[in-house]
Amino acid sequence: MLIQRRFLLFAAAMIFMLSCVIIAAKNVYAVNLKSFILKPVPIPKNNPQTKEKIKLGKMLFFDNRLSGDGSLSCASCHVPAAGFTTPTRLSLSYPTTMHWRHTPSVIDSGYLKFLFWDGRATSLEQQALGPISTPFEMNKHIHYLTAELYEIPVYRKMFRQVFHAKNIITQKMVAEAIASFERTIVVTKTPFYSYIKGNKHAMSKKAIAGFKLFIGKASCIRCHYGPVFTDNKFHALGVPPLHLTGKTAKLVAVTRHYFTYVNAHLKNSNKIKRDLGRYLITHKKSDMYKFVTPSLIDIGEIGPYYMHNGSIKGLLNVVKFFNKGGGNIPNKSKLIKPLHLTLKQEYEIVAFLKSLDGPKFNITSPKLPHFINK
Amino acid sequence: MLIQRRFLLFAAAMIFMLSCVIIAAKNVYAVNLKSFILKPVPIPKNNPQTKEKIKLGKMLFFDNRLSGDGSLSCASCHVPAAGFTTPTRLSLSYPTTMHWRHTPSVIDSGYLKFLFWDGRATSLEQQALGPISTPFEMNKHIHYLTAELYEIPVYRKMFRQVFHAKNIITQKMVAEAIASFERTIVVTKTPFYSYIKGNKHAMSKKAIAGFKLFIGKASCIRCHYGPVFTDNKFHALGVPPLHLTGKTAKLVAVTRHYFTYVNAHLKNSNKIKRDLGRYLITHKKSDMYKFVTPSLIDIGEIGPYYMHNGSIKGLLNVVKFFNKGGGNIPNKSKLIKPLHLTLKQEYEIVAFLKSLDGPKFNITSPKLPHFINK
Repeated sequence: MLIQRRFLLFAAAMIFMLSCVIIAAKNVYAVNLKSFILKPVPIPKNNPQTKEKIKLGKMLFFDNRLSGDGSLSCASCHVPAAGFTTPTRLSLSYPTTMHWRHTPSVIDSGYLKFLFWDGRATSLEQQALGPISTPFEMNKHIHYLTAELYEIPVYRKMFRQVFHAKNIITQKMVAEAIASFERTIVVTKTPFYSYIKGNKHAMSKKAIAGFKLFIGKASCIRCHYGPVFTDNKFHALGVPPLHLTGKTAKLVAVTRHYFTYVNAHLKNSNKIKRDLGRYLITHKKSDMYKFVTPSLIDIGEIGPYYMHNGSIKGLLNVVKFFNKGGGNIPNKSKLIKPLHLTLKQEYEIVAFLKSLDGPKFNITSPKLPHFINK
Repeated sequence: MLIQRRFLLFAAAMIFMLSCVIIAAKNVYAVNLKSFILKPVPIPKNNPQTKEKIKLGKMLFFDNRLSGDGSLSCASCHVPAAGFTTPTRLSLSYPTTMHWRHTPSVIDSGYLKFLFWDGRATSLEQQALGPISTPFEMNKHIHYLTAELYEIPVYRKMFRQVFHAKNIITQKMVAEAIASFERTIVVTKTPFYSYIKGNKHAMSKKAIAGFKLFIGKASCIRCHYGPVFTDNKFHALGVPPLHLTGKTAKLVAVTRHYFTYVNAHLKNSNKIKRDLGRYLITHKKSDMYKFVTPSLIDIGEIGPYYMHNGSIKGLLNVVKFFNKGGGNIPNKSKLIKPLHLTLKQEYEIVAFLKSLDGPKFNITSPKLPHFINK
């Protein structure tokens, strides 16, 4: 019975896929729906998932003691109920500091080739220690982090059990545990996934129309393809800058100088008016103003602010931004051109994007251990 | 007239000195009062004092932005009105961290060969960046410190004027400016200094009796000699440990682990029950439990807590501690033996110590600049 059912589903899916390729062909891009099927999240060989490691990683993710003054945890910016991102334009940061980029979501981050907007990490293990240690985010001395965790009996025991290491907690272990937890933050139940598996009623007509535009006239698919809808590449779009005045001018100033600091080769950094993006990492002129293509899974849930600096509010405005051909910036991607979409079509694309939303995450905060056994 | 007066003073001083040597001779130690005369504070050749640099250093000393969350400045622990130390047993520290040593005073620190209780810095320039960057004190990322200062127009201008460097503020400059200000924190007007300059009425009879004990029966002079009363050496005294229970047990634990961290060679760090002092820096067994001899100038003003861990309250109890021959500790200094002082004599030594106090510092907090010109 089961085999028969599976076969029927498979056949239905195949037929649907073929039809989709035909539909798409009319609109320039041939799309194989198979390419959207979500495989299990890749697990690195040197950091296998275990139940205990994931549990430990979850605790660390929620523990404020991972910040310098005990005021922020990973979950303070990657808020589970807000799609594991921050529901404000910019990331939270530590008192007396300010951040200048919008928090990327953790959702499906296990599928990404590049982490951070400028792609400076290429694994979740590499990513995890960055926000903990930077003075613009959690500002924890990485040496004190491991020293402090070691003095919490429950953690000491858990790290020993998970990593089979006696009397030591290392930065690497902390990063691996957090990454293991993050690899469990995967959205599998979206209307779109149901649709491509053969459930034609999973998406509304409007959303299906949006999908056709997405892979056709609007050509979103050029950058947003694959199971989590990203090419894992970097593009300059000309996203509007944030207009910061008065008190928040400090942000711009600090940003600039931080960029100068880590990029001592930059001349006249005071005249830099935009976030240089990928260029700050590669120092290649061709990477100027480029940011990585984000995943679109759960895109509705992670709103209302979008883009690397959170400057666009609401999905409709994101679509409008692309419809008018992006912003005005040197080095702009040649893929970004006016789309001539009607307002109706813009709404259809938004409807499709919302079909990439999974159910709300219902993650309860773990019980955190004390500094002394009790 | 002036020359004559000077000559008379000099002659009087010489006669007094000789008499003092005689007095001291009766009590074992021959003391040349000339050795107590305070010379101008030594200025390193590579960091000359300028009025502007001192002004800048004072501003930095009082600026909370030198801590990671903007809650602490140098002056938070080195409180001018409390003799440039902390009027609590232990140093203040950053939220979620705890310190385990008592704040040394800044007063006359320009004369010292070693800074910190374990002597890990040998100049004020070296010392200044330590408390700013350690997670157990101000917890400021040293890279962000210079970036942030650079974004404050007034500081940017001042650093340029003081250090003749364009478009840059370095850690070295910050340290040099703070050190320059600290070298101005010198106590010159004590009853004792007046006394050795020839004013016999500057000290009470009780204090003079105390001085005789100090250089005689009590033999304090063996370690506390010279203009600021220190041999600049390290001794193990067996100072009582702080009895920390419950919540504050964390302190002990963190201390131990911190020591382990910076001293990875230490085995069984969990079994360490005392601060290992100088040993943590030199790794020589002969330095175990040793701490540097502090200056005694302004010793009354910097109370009520004394010793490296602030465990002794009040000068009388400090004298009593030495009178009973210090504490019970391996590696204890052979200079520390029971003194057989009477209670009256203990009080006399306290009276002498108080004659080393200068007038209260009356330092007003400087006006601190804004992040934007206004």
